[in-house]
Amino acid sequence: MDAQYINPFLNATAKVLETMAFLKVRPGKPYVKKNSSAAGDVSGIIGITGDVEGSFSISFSKECIKKVVSNMLGEEVEDIDDEVKDAVGELTNIISGDARRELSEKGLSLNGSLPTVVAGPSHEIKHVGKGPTIALPFETDAGPVTVEVCFNH
Amino acid sequence: MDAQYINPFLNATAKVLETMAFLKVRPGKPYVKKNSSAAGDVSGIIGITGDVEGSFSISFSKECIKKVVSNMLGEEVEDIDDEVKDAVGELTNIISGDARRELSEKGLSLNGSLPTVVAGPSHEIKHVGKGPTIALPFETDAGPVTVEVCFNH
Repeated sequence: MDAQYINPFLNATAKVLETMAFLKVRPGKPYVKKNSSAAGDVSGIIGITGDVEGSFSISFSKECIKKVVSNMLGEEVEDIDDEVKDAVGELTNIISGDARRELSEKGLSLNGSLPTVVAGPSHEIKHVGKGPTIALPFETDAGPVTVEVCFNH
Repeated sequence: MDAQYINPFLNATAKVLETMAFLKVRPGKPYVKKNSSAAGDVSGIIGITGDVEGSFSISFSKECIKKVVSNMLGEEVEDIDDEVKDAVGELTNIISGDARRELSEKGLSLNGSLPTVVAGPSHEIKHVGKGPTIALPFETDAGPVTVEVCFNH
């Protein structure tokens, strides 16, 4: 997959986590995902349609999402409760929207579905498409975050 | 939410599971989902865009999906492995596509994203949208199946 379709997701993730959650993120090296383990305990998933079909996910460890949402809300959160899940949905929406805006400037017109949030320790996510799933790992002071993108080509 | 937007998902689920997996399914009473527990161990999720944004999921218990995929492939499957996850993605795609075709006959034009498959015991799914999440429970001889639909209105 062309890096020009991946970089907008990398940029958007870093920008949104830094802006909304005041979290310094250090992007790692993108890789083609071979198994279906998600690197986290809670994930936001959004479907993509338009010029190409795809799917986008972002997975957080429990410790990391607690820190992210605590920072977003300005109050300590203790567990992956309904408020945290809504925040994951909102982050997923904003990151995917920001990436799609950048892609539209490159001539790729994409639409986003409603986000879905999955919670459960060590759950696995598999993107089912013709193209490879590209994983973008990030390190933060609160733990790892993994973004995954799959397009149908 | 109008029943005319829900029934196509109910019809498609029953038809596809009966046709592809030779499984008799008994639809239960649809209800508005209040919590985010999915009634299963493996779920397929698909995003919806077009005239309205939405999301669709189908969740199986482990025993049920083993039976479904064993019937589809004509050979016993023992675990929720990669082949089973691909089959869940395919079922999700076909059911959502069939429902969208029926909705398009009612004048609602919708597109489907790539499916995403989530595996993990007792994972929870939350659809994040303005509208309610409608759950459609099914009983089968192999255990329960739950379909969920959320639209942004």
